[in-house]
Amino acid sequence: MRIPVLIEVDCDGHRAGVDPESPLLLDLAAELAREPLVLRGVLTHAGSSYDCSSPEAIRAVAARERDGLVHAAERMRRAGHEVPVVSAGSTPTALCAEDLAGVTELRAGVYTFFDLMQEELGICRLDEIALSVLTEVIGHQAERGWLLVDAGWMALSRDPGSPRPGGAAEYGRVCDLAGKPLGDLVVRGVNQEHGIVASRSGAAVSPEDFPAGTLLRILPNHACATAAQQDGYYLVRGGIRIEGYWPRLDRSAAYRGRW
Amino acid sequence: MRIPVLIEVDCDGHRAGVDPESPLLLDLAAELAREPLVLRGVLTHAGSSYDCSSPEAIRAVAARERDGLVHAAERMRRAGHEVPVVSAGSTPTALCAEDLAGVTELRAGVYTFFDLMQEELGICRLDEIALSVLTEVIGHQAERGWLLVDAGWMALSRDPGSPRPGGAAEYGRVCDLAGKPLGDLVVRGVNQEHGIVASRSGAAVSPEDFPAGTLLRILPNHACATAAQQDGYYLVRGGIRIEGYWPRLDRSAAYRGRW
Repeated sequence: MRIPVLIEVDCDGHRAGVDPESPLLLDLAAELAREPLVLRGVLTHAGSSYDCSSPEAIRAVAARERDGLVHAAERMRRAGHEVPVVSAGSTPTALCAEDLAGVTELRAGVYTFFDLMQEELGICRLDEIALSVLTEVIGHQAERGWLLVDAGWMALSRDPGSPRPGGAAEYGRVCDLAGKPLGDLVVRGVNQEHGIVASRSGAAVSPEDFPAGTLLRILPNHACATAAQQDGYYLVRGGIRIEGYWPRLDRSAAYRGRW
Repeated sequence: MRIPVLIEVDCDGHRAGVDPESPLLLDLAAELAREPLVLRGVLTHAGSSYDCSSPEAIRAVAARERDGLVHAAERMRRAGHEVPVVSAGSTPTALCAEDLAGVTELRAGVYTFFDLMQEELGICRLDEIALSVLTEVIGHQAERGWLLVDAGWMALSRDPGSPRPGGAAEYGRVCDLAGKPLGDLVVRGVNQEHGIVASRSGAAVSPEDFPAGTLLRILPNHACATAAQQDGYYLVRGGIRIEGYWPRLDRSAAYRGRW
């Protein structure tokens, strides 16, 4: 048995990994080059790109990500190791990087769909977000100016997205069926199977404008978290005609009947 | 076709439903008694029990829940309706209620497992929490005093639980394999597949005490949210010997091949 391994490099002090300048990098490489292991290379994830407030700041993080990762790979090569895999991550840096020389792989996930966090980082436009939750108005609290919808955190996730002014919670932007945002309507609160829709400004939402049964689309704060809440995905092209269904990876089948 | 319906009653101004005193209640009942509908009764959920800070306060919410619900049922009966179903909810009120006369059903969910929110409300003890996430130490950030574990929000959920002093995030209490809390260790941060374990006091966690590969159990903030993140559940009796596996409801099979 041969087990391929990568060494995680910490390019931005964000979470995990070995400093590209650390002596530990070469000690680890020597240790991981022994059978049954096969040292294959290095990987990193520039998680600090999510703390940036402009594309310029993300470009700087992307340059540091690439430089730290490639530097680690070069140090390992100078120590006699083959380093065929030099793998970088993070959707913001994947889209903002100006120089990827020496990088062999980009592991960008939310890239597939985009979401409100990416839009707020300046990485995509609202109309490029390709994942939404279809929901229905199921009631009103007219004196509070709320709509109640049948999408709570089971459908949207509890991911709070980017920090909001004053700490007011938001769990998604509310759109019509074509995906066009409806003014400043947001999901202000989520319970397990209920969502509370209100306006950012605090202006009351009129029940007459959104009778029970009205269908709405919610754009997600974080596509990864929202996608993971679903058993599968209905495919549409801007409207409501369903052109296909993609089931999500179902791991439970593998375990069934095992005990 | 006959479609049975219940009317949601708002017993605590928390979210949804009709005021038990409102004229709307009887208008709705008259409307919903028409074929193909069959009016079956009333339901409520005392969500405000989660905002209480003592069992006494929860008892008061439970009394208001029962009184409002039964009062609504009585008003409907006086108007000539049969009301066989009088359904109350919420785990805190289900366990604290002193008088349930007139209630025919309790819909309590987290009741099945308990969790840290229930423990903090005084509804259960830590050692009565019957759901935990098994995780493994996968790394350290010694200079920050962190352990890294392989349970992030995909395993634990992003549910923030009860508000914490100073707003410090917590995503679960850290226990040994027998479910015994390890001092004041908590999950301080969650990424998709990584969790960051640190002490509440800020004292550094020693890597020597928790080498890579150490198995830990995390008690969840909110059992409903954590349970929903899993494809199924391994059954144990306090140890690690697995005595069974329960798959979670799999809705995707019903859709497969439909398009």
